Amino acid sequence: MKELKDLIEARAEYLGNGILKADSFINHQLLPGVSTRMGQAFAAGFKARGVTGATRIVTAEVSGIAPALVTALAMDIPMVFARKKRPSFMNDLLLEASATSRTKGEDVSLYISSKYLGPTDRVVIVDDFLATASTLEALCSIVKQSGATLLAIGCIIEKVFESGRQRLEHLNVPIISLARIDLVDSGSSFIVS
Amino acid sequence: MKELKDLIEARAEYLGNGILKADSFINHQLLPGVSTRMGQAFAAGFKARGVTGATRIVTAEVSGIAPALVTALAMDIPMVFARKKRPSFMNDLLLEASATSRTKGEDVSLYISSKYLGPTDRVVIVDDFLATASTLEALCSIVKQSGATLLAIGCIIEKVFESGRQRLEHLNVPIISLARIDLVDSGSSFIVS
Repeated sequence: MKELKDLIEARAEYLGNGILKADSFINHQLLPGVSTRMGQAFAAGFKARGVTGATRIVTAEVSGIAPALVTALAMDIPMVFARKKRPSFMNDLLLEASATSRTKGEDVSLYISSKYLGPTDRVVIVDDFLATASTLEALCSIVKQSGATLLAIGCIIEKVFESGRQRLEHLNVPIISLARIDLVDSGSSFIVS
Repeated sequence: MKELKDLIEARAEYLGNGILKADSFINHQLLPGVSTRMGQAFAAGFKARGVTGATRIVTAEVSGIAPALVTALAMDIPMVFARKKRPSFMNDLLLEASATSRTKGEDVSLYISSKYLGPTDRVVIVDDFLATASTLEALCSIVKQSGATLLAIGCIIEKVFESGRQRLEHLNVPIISLARIDLVDSGSSFIVS
């Protein structure tokens, strides 16, 4: 997605240690046109990879909500976002898996109610970053527990140097990213493709 | 918004103690058509109340992101969502205020980078629920600290019995809600209007 690559080059900040800050269009501020076109790019990308009949988009709060919602709008199917805290009043049967947040340095549990994900669902997972794939693996585990069929995975930005894609390859589903970044100059800078 | 009122009556669960669970269309699962029409209803509602020239939607993570994003799409302006944790790598000048989450029973700080909210901004705040107005008051405080002009406040569901609207009246801005619920039968049930 050329518009996204240009945005990353112009406005993302590289803070070192593999951390890319995309606050101005992904993780803090959201731009309406760019967000809509990201959703359309995911929908077109999944279609191009032969994904059909999806019934549900799955993501995790917080930063997954926006990309998953715009994809849900583009594909006209419901979206469900995993909660990171078990709400005190969430009394449904919960599907649960653990992920490690590298930027926050802690383990978090993800919860999805079995009311909103079940054996008849055909699922596409969408998230903001594909880095170590810890969150995506947890979401895949929840999809598997639910009995649903996983069709594909999409992320806005893939950090190629963290090798998350390799960790997801055993799932045998298409993995699409709207932009990829890799480190150069011994990690002091990055390139976008 | 009649569609929303019907949804609340058909699918929201009242758990007692003033807690309404709207997981199936607001706080856990999101429906694409309903979400889009909520954004359009906010945009139309603000316009009908004389709100013009808004430059930014402001909300708080987690459950504010979806309604604020669809409103941002309908009004074609950027949205910024307050973070509840100060990310370890967020080194910008931060605007901060505290809110009490009644459902989670704890105080949380909200943070917005001053990069994305400043004196030239004309702001509409959008959130999921207007209950005690604690989160909305914190967001209003952040808007005030930034020097921006607050134009209006919108929420999907107003819990009339928690009197949040009265707490916001001193701001002298339009406050719109897409549906209102009130308790009946000594709090054992609710009605929607």
